[in-house]
Amino acid sequence: MSIADSLRTTLDGRWAHVRERSRVDLAGPDMLPDPTLDLPAARQRTLDQLHRIVATGYPADGFRTEHGGTGDIGASVTGFEMLGYADLSLMVKAGVQWGLFGGAVENLGTKRHHEAYIKRIISLDLIGSFAMTETGHGSDVQNLETTATYDLQAQEFVIHTPSRSARKDYIGGAGQHATIAAVFAQLVTAGESHGVHCFVVPLRDDNGNDLPGVTTADCGVKAGLDGVDNGRITFDRVRVPRDNLLNRYADVAADGAYTSAIDNPGRRFFTMLGTLIRGRISVGAGGGAAARLALAIATRYALGRRQFGAPGSDDEVLLMDYLLHQRRLLPLIAKSYALQLAQNELVGAMHDIQSVDDSDPHAQRELESRAAGLKAVTTWHATRTIQECREACGGAGYLAANRLSVLKADTDVFTTFEGDNHVLAQLVAKELLTAYADEVRGLDPLGMVRFATSTAADAALERTAAPQLIQRLLSATPIGENLLDRGTQVAMFEDREKHVLETAARRLRRARKDGNDAFAVFNAAQDHVVKAAMVHVDRVVLEAFVAAIDGCDDPGAKALLGQVCDLYALSVIEQDKAWFMEHRRLSIARAKEVTSHVSELCRQLRPHALTLIEGFGIPESMLGAAMLQPADD
Amino acid sequence: MSIADSLRTTLDGRWAHVRERSRVDLAGPDMLPDPTLDLPAARQRTLDQLHRIVATGYPADGFRTEHGGTGDIGASVTGFEMLGYADLSLMVKAGVQWGLFGGAVENLGTKRHHEAYIKRIISLDLIGSFAMTETGHGSDVQNLETTATYDLQAQEFVIHTPSRSARKDYIGGAGQHATIAAVFAQLVTAGESHGVHCFVVPLRDDNGNDLPGVTTADCGVKAGLDGVDNGRITFDRVRVPRDNLLNRYADVAADGAYTSAIDNPGRRFFTMLGTLIRGRISVGAGGGAAARLALAIATRYALGRRQFGAPGSDDEVLLMDYLLHQRRLLPLIAKSYALQLAQNELVGAMHDIQSVDDSDPHAQRELESRAAGLKAVTTWHATRTIQECREACGGAGYLAANRLSVLKADTDVFTTFEGDNHVLAQLVAKELLTAYADEVRGLDPLGMVRFATSTAADAALERTAAPQLIQRLLSATPIGENLLDRGTQVAMFEDREKHVLETAARRLRRARKDGNDAFAVFNAAQDHVVKAAMVHVDRVVLEAFVAAIDGCDDPGAKALLGQVCDLYALSVIEQDKAWFMEHRRLSIARAKEVTSHVSELCRQLRPHALTLIEGFGIPESMLGAAMLQPADD
Repeated sequence: MSIADSLRTTLDGRWAHVRERSRVDLAGPDMLPDPTLDLPAARQRTLDQLHRIVATGYPADGFRTEHGGTGDIGASVTGFEMLGYADLSLMVKAGVQWGLFGGAVENLGTKRHHEAYIKRIISLDLIGSFAMTETGHGSDVQNLETTATYDLQAQEFVIHTPSRSARKDYIGGAGQHATIAAVFAQLVTAGESHGVHCFVVPLRDDNGNDLPGVTTADCGVKAGLDGVDNGRITFDRVRVPRDNLLNRYADVAADGAYTSAIDNPGRRFFTMLGTLIRGRISVGAGGGAAARLALAIATRYALGRRQFGAPGSDDEVLLMDYLLHQRRLLPLIAKSYALQLAQNELVGAMHDIQSVDDSDPHAQRELESRAAGLKAVTTWHATRTIQECREACGGAGYLAANRLSVLKADTDVFTTFEGDNHVLAQLVAKELLTAYADEVRGLDPLGMVRFATSTAADAALERTAAPQLIQRLLSATPIGENLLDRGTQVAMFEDREKHVLETAARRLRRARKDGNDAFAVFNAAQDHVVKAAMVHVDRVVLEAFVAAIDGCDDPGAKALLGQVCDLYALSVIEQDKAWFMEHRRLSIARAKEVTSHVSELCRQLRPHALTLIEGFGIPESMLGAAMLQPADD
Repeated sequence: MSIADSLRTTLDGRWAHVRERSRVDLAGPDMLPDPTLDLPAARQRTLDQLHRIVATGYPADGFRTEHGGTGDIGASVTGFEMLGYADLSLMVKAGVQWGLFGGAVENLGTKRHHEAYIKRIISLDLIGSFAMTETGHGSDVQNLETTATYDLQAQEFVIHTPSRSARKDYIGGAGQHATIAAVFAQLVTAGESHGVHCFVVPLRDDNGNDLPGVTTADCGVKAGLDGVDNGRITFDRVRVPRDNLLNRYADVAADGAYTSAIDNPGRRFFTMLGTLIRGRISVGAGGGAAARLALAIATRYALGRRQFGAPGSDDEVLLMDYLLHQRRLLPLIAKSYALQLAQNELVGAMHDIQSVDDSDPHAQRELESRAAGLKAVTTWHATRTIQECREACGGAGYLAANRLSVLKADTDVFTTFEGDNHVLAQLVAKELLTAYADEVRGLDPLGMVRFATSTAADAALERTAAPQLIQRLLSATPIGENLLDRGTQVAMFEDREKHVLETAARRLRRARKDGNDAFAVFNAAQDHVVKAAMVHVDRVVLEAFVAAIDGCDDPGAKALLGQVCDLYALSVIEQDKAWFMEHRRLSIARAKEVTSHVSELCRQLRPHALTLIEGFGIPESMLGAAMLQPADD
């Protein structure tokens, strides 16, 4: 086994078999993007690709065996991630159909819904959409305006869009292909509102025409994702049978009586949302895949492209031999390794938690928080990485035939959908600062201020990967001696997290006592709060890296992974150097050392650049960049 | 006059009348982008827009009166910048025709070329292209491979593409519309090569067919700039008359004898290139305009969009009232002010230097260096700013109808064309480190290492704006007392520049003495060298801001500009805080103060957000974002 193969094995993780199958199933130019198509043709192509995915059997992984699936949740998300190497429109379209729409029916519905829909969802005989976001409310889903009012007489729900800001917006599938939707709306019965619930609502007839009372519109051209037909939906008192309420967590009886096993409306709503985190995890996974693909393309280009002669040599210099180019690409490669390993841990945890009937509520909540944090960090990483790769390939990078610009355009919305990253970061921080207080759910500034706890750091510092190993590293280390010592790095990450969290909590508590306006208190600390989330994620990611190195059997690969982990850890420290100095965690001399170490690690990893991107396990046939082919024109 | 009007007057600068005229000439939806068009339709639309620009008389500004122009160089570049508010494809297409192609004929040609071409170039009866970049060489133009070999017998030059990497690539106009090109090629006569020169070479006949020996190809879909027909050109021994050499700086006599008033081939080549800096300055200007447009859109959106309720209030909170949102947008607005003021200084200097026949070589060289530095900083600012604005508008920002994604896609190549930013930054650094040594031109690592001088900082710290005022500020200041004191800010910027330059020069000199390989010496210091360029530009920009505030007559506007300048200066310091601490320029306590100041300035500027973007002077009708219209759907 080559070192690249061993790296791939490490990165492939627990669902390696799914990745291997995908590399075969997704091969061939038919599964790659075609940027020359116009919008209608692009959508048709993506729909055709989606049908081809049905034939691979992959969609069944997301559904329980009793509903016609295989019940392998981890395989489902991993398979979704692999679609990111093929065509991101396909990935998103698949995500809408099987992840979001299918997931809502599966997880919020009950037997009658499973029997009626799941098989047809898997087979694509029923194409659905996920109608949550509205023009007026994207991040603040609890305050959606669409209403579902129970009509006792007719035993029907009346779905209605009361204002322009209440129309469903940006909904994948609503532009053209979806004939049905999972619609989120405020449930009203007997004159009382019970918060947001989900309803199955037919949208179009077999000829694609809007059903009575339904008005769809097309969102038109977007930055990218040409193959996804995003649209808007307005409901004018559309009636659906009472049975169309997805009633796993709450129900309305024929007589209009509302019942739910979860009394607290906030907890009920977030329990429902919690079952849907697969979408968020998948978007993070897809962003990570796109970043790796971009790095694979840009690195291969830099290993072939020469520019400017070196004095005393007839050859021009390879781009990859410039320190600047190494510093542009290698830390991003290192971070891509780190994030994929953390993503693998996350998917494993999700699989284990969601595969049992009664999961531990605390574990579920930690999972949700971790999913939110990793989604934000990974999709920002994707945006930044693909941008850097585009620029690193110069004019060639700007041509759609070389794929980078397509990756950039397609992934740009990943930082927004399935939760705006800035909102997610605050959500993570709120969970940590309140130590997952049961009293506050969602992003609740008042709750955050009121429940910020002095034990925040203890709650946050729960270790999510290899806890014993981490403990051993920490005990062995005289902290602060050697920046290339893993224990020192872990200690620095943990210490920073603890300090940022504790000071944020103290700041919120102190300001509250002064009797200030809760929003003003929260707002003044908003940057501090977001930083708390970011440094938390950094630590979780580093721990996943440490655990993965420990699990690698090939000594050569293990050593290389160690250097990559050093580069990841020191790049993170370098970027936040000012914080470490301001808080007397780094002396001036050692701060300068951080920068030398990063440059030196880049120099040391330079000869392994090709091996490292081969470790990503992206078949060359899936790179889809014309400039990498010898006879490109 | 309102404060917004006064701000606009300050930003409009010396060619305010050109801006005012453009605001009228470019009004109307016909001049805005239409993202729904396919490639052929987009190209036709841009060509139609270009013809409409002819009718405004603007193109004549770039050419001397004796050739049929108005000779107002500053007006020409300012008008180009204003096109950035309309459609960036139009801006680039105009830039290729009148700036690059027209500029090459005007500045590298002589009477016979001016008489033959300029009027037809202005009127668009002759559409040209600028064939410099090749597949194999973009940044390193001195090593282009295309040859122009003089055939004594026929008294013709033979233009030839000797290899695949020698084909002309990414050439605007070569895809479809250009019938002629300014082609850069190695001039060979009597068996001797004399370096790169420029030749006028017909490409297509009146029906758009390639002429014999010419093969054009289309670059196809790009990230953006759909209206620009980029293409490739391969020459198979294409013959042009001897007269087609643009012979202002060098000539070949009928008998094949080569003559030039500039003996040194390097100096000759860079003198030729130096006459073409208008293109580089214009790209920077266009990037700046696009960034301001994006900020105007995102800020207006943030002033209308509400999300999440504040505790104790029925209203949801305006995005612009969140500290995080202020911190995302306001420092970018401040930097946009700073960069536009620096750009205005640059355009003024260019106008003055290029409007006289015998310009001071030192002033010309400083101008070229400043143009390179500002182009890099401004286009990176554009990329980052437009990205942030897109994200700050969430899903709405992803829709092409709201323009931000179009701005992002269109400007993405600005960091690459007219000089890759990383290469430009090194060019600037080289000029500073060698104190504009006449011995080294272009990006020459060996030269940089050999001529790095101990007086680098003195050469660099020449003041380009308001020298007396700056001197007064510096003398009045007990440095380091108050971060909001302008003199302190200027002193910190100057001191940082001096230190970075001196240490870089010392490092290069010391390493050279050790007898190391010159490339290795240069490469090990590459990040240090680039930083030298960046901190230099920061200081030049701050000085331009100081000069502009001094020139503002409206006390209200002047005070506001002062706060904006504070935010610019402190944001720059905040971003480089680690450097200031590592070099003992900021104590820990004062470093923390920097961050508080930035947040506090954001809070203070929040009520002026609308005024500040109104100061950009972009007519509302040119914003072109559907989401800002009350009845958008």
